[in-house]
Amino acid sequence: MKKILNDPSHYVDEMLEGFTAAHPEFYAQPERRVIARAGGAIDGKVGIVTGGGSGHLPVFTGYVGPGFLDACAIGDVFASPSAEQMAGAIRRANGGAGVLRLYGNYGGDVMNFDMAGEMVDMEDDIRTATVVLADDVVSAPKEEAEKRRGVAGMIYAFKIAGAAADTMADLDEVTRIAQKAADACRSIGMALSPCIVPQAGKANFEIGDGEMEMGMGIHGEPGIWRDSLKPADAITDEMIDRLLADRPLARGDRVSVLVNSLGATPLEELYIMYRRVRQRFDEAGVEIVMPLVGRYATSMEMTGATLTVIALDDELETLLKAPAACAYWRVG
Amino acid sequence: MKKILNDPSHYVDEMLEGFTAAHPEFYAQPERRVIARAGGAIDGKVGIVTGGGSGHLPVFTGYVGPGFLDACAIGDVFASPSAEQMAGAIRRANGGAGVLRLYGNYGGDVMNFDMAGEMVDMEDDIRTATVVLADDVVSAPKEEAEKRRGVAGMIYAFKIAGAAADTMADLDEVTRIAQKAADACRSIGMALSPCIVPQAGKANFEIGDGEMEMGMGIHGEPGIWRDSLKPADAITDEMIDRLLADRPLARGDRVSVLVNSLGATPLEELYIMYRRVRQRFDEAGVEIVMPLVGRYATSMEMTGATLTVIALDDELETLLKAPAACAYWRVG
Repeated sequence: MKKILNDPSHYVDEMLEGFTAAHPEFYAQPERRVIARAGGAIDGKVGIVTGGGSGHLPVFTGYVGPGFLDACAIGDVFASPSAEQMAGAIRRANGGAGVLRLYGNYGGDVMNFDMAGEMVDMEDDIRTATVVLADDVVSAPKEEAEKRRGVAGMIYAFKIAGAAADTMADLDEVTRIAQKAADACRSIGMALSPCIVPQAGKANFEIGDGEMEMGMGIHGEPGIWRDSLKPADAITDEMIDRLLADRPLARGDRVSVLVNSLGATPLEELYIMYRRVRQRFDEAGVEIVMPLVGRYATSMEMTGATLTVIALDDELETLLKAPAACAYWRVG
Repeated sequence: MKKILNDPSHYVDEMLEGFTAAHPEFYAQPERRVIARAGGAIDGKVGIVTGGGSGHLPVFTGYVGPGFLDACAIGDVFASPSAEQMAGAIRRANGGAGVLRLYGNYGGDVMNFDMAGEMVDMEDDIRTATVVLADDVVSAPKEEAEKRRGVAGMIYAFKIAGAAADTMADLDEVTRIAQKAADACRSIGMALSPCIVPQAGKANFEIGDGEMEMGMGIHGEPGIWRDSLKPADAITDEMIDRLLADRPLARGDRVSVLVNSLGATPLEELYIMYRRVRQRFDEAGVEIVMPLVGRYATSMEMTGATLTVIALDDELETLLKAPAACAYWRVG
């Protein structure tokens, strides 16, 4: 197992201990498997909470911070946190103006966050709302978009909803904007090699030496084709084409673009992909605002990349550019 | 070859095209294989220039920016830039107050930067000085420290020298401080799996499935032992012990610490390592200032990590904390 760890069953808790020790200016761990902002919830501001499995840093818990999220519940690697942990995160995010649950569309997370919402409603009288993120275009057809998984595009919703909450908008308004950001966002991934879930101790899928898989999910969910590895431009072109088929753009449109590594794929290769994205969007007359290239949502040491495009209007662009800070992404 | 690329011979130039397109607020490419600050050299400020092979992003060229470097010459993957490219970078960094050449101790880089210094002295009347970075403690014994290689600790010298130049100190003073930062810095690495140099098309070394190599260099230079993979705490303890044997610390000392991934090793595992570093330094009564955990100096998709410790006095700490910004590291 080519991983630097101690006891696999301590992987997540030891990670969180190092994480909060390294960045005390951003993160606190008020209870087990709950990360909250170092300063705690803000009175009168809508709280935003997320949660999900470990193994995707900086997603999820890295995006807690000013202008981003207020708290996060953390599960084992690739496993949902419990409803109790999610309820704990909601309580930590609560500043008295209600809490938005903003998270990726995975069965366990949906079930547990629904239960957590009922718990805090009954026990704590906290009003909550939900926006489920489902940006992965190849995980279900357009007609069943509600079945799609949430992947790297989630970070745009975190950023934009966080900025909306910072304006002291109410819960309905923050929820509207978060849903608008989610609806404007499309992602697609491709993978070249697997990762190892520590407690399983083996690769989460198998793939040949010269092969790639288009459309694979961030936990190794099957994609749409597997074949010999294509050149970077051909890969990028297909990813762009599939995103634009799902959500067309017109000349004069503005977008932000995220070229994201699943972990092992180096920055060098992300820039080779971004070069092609930029060429294609220049040709199409689509303006790229605030491009992001790096490791924003990973699957530990998986090799591969994802491409996300979010269509911006004035409202979304203003909120995307509003000041925000966490250990991995600082704006303004 | 599990890499996302087009023609391997275009890897570096396509990377640079995407890199400058993604971050125009920081970087410009005024000539082939030279990256300079977007705004150009600053009148009357000592320029700081670096250079080296590609394949280590964010090193080297990522650290061009306000409070950091002024220009960088970029070679092929793991290959020195030419003397002409280095001379070009020196000219782009020149604001009329002289230029410090600040780079890692590798034969080709030293030879070419020496030639570049002679070229700009004769042709352009630019005064230059040199500080060679050699922080890797296992690459040569202490008595031959001048033979040591430069690795991840170089980024501390970039940051501190950049802050010194921002005070409008003269070339001698910036050189003194850069040398002081270099002398205060020690690094050690360990590797679990190789990377692929695009034009070679194969792994740069071989290593067994369950093996690690302590002390391996960032291009796959041999380390000091190879054995079965140890637990994270044992690995971290040995790395700390070897750093402290080379440069002892006393109770009450202040340091900054960098836990750096060589590329594929995920943030989760860096935090598990940082947790142990923090435990050990807490026990030793050594205060950690501004810890860095992430991918600051990589070898593309190599698996492994490096640990750097820099001992701080008031002068170095003030300069380390001074405002600076590039696409990968923002302070203040």
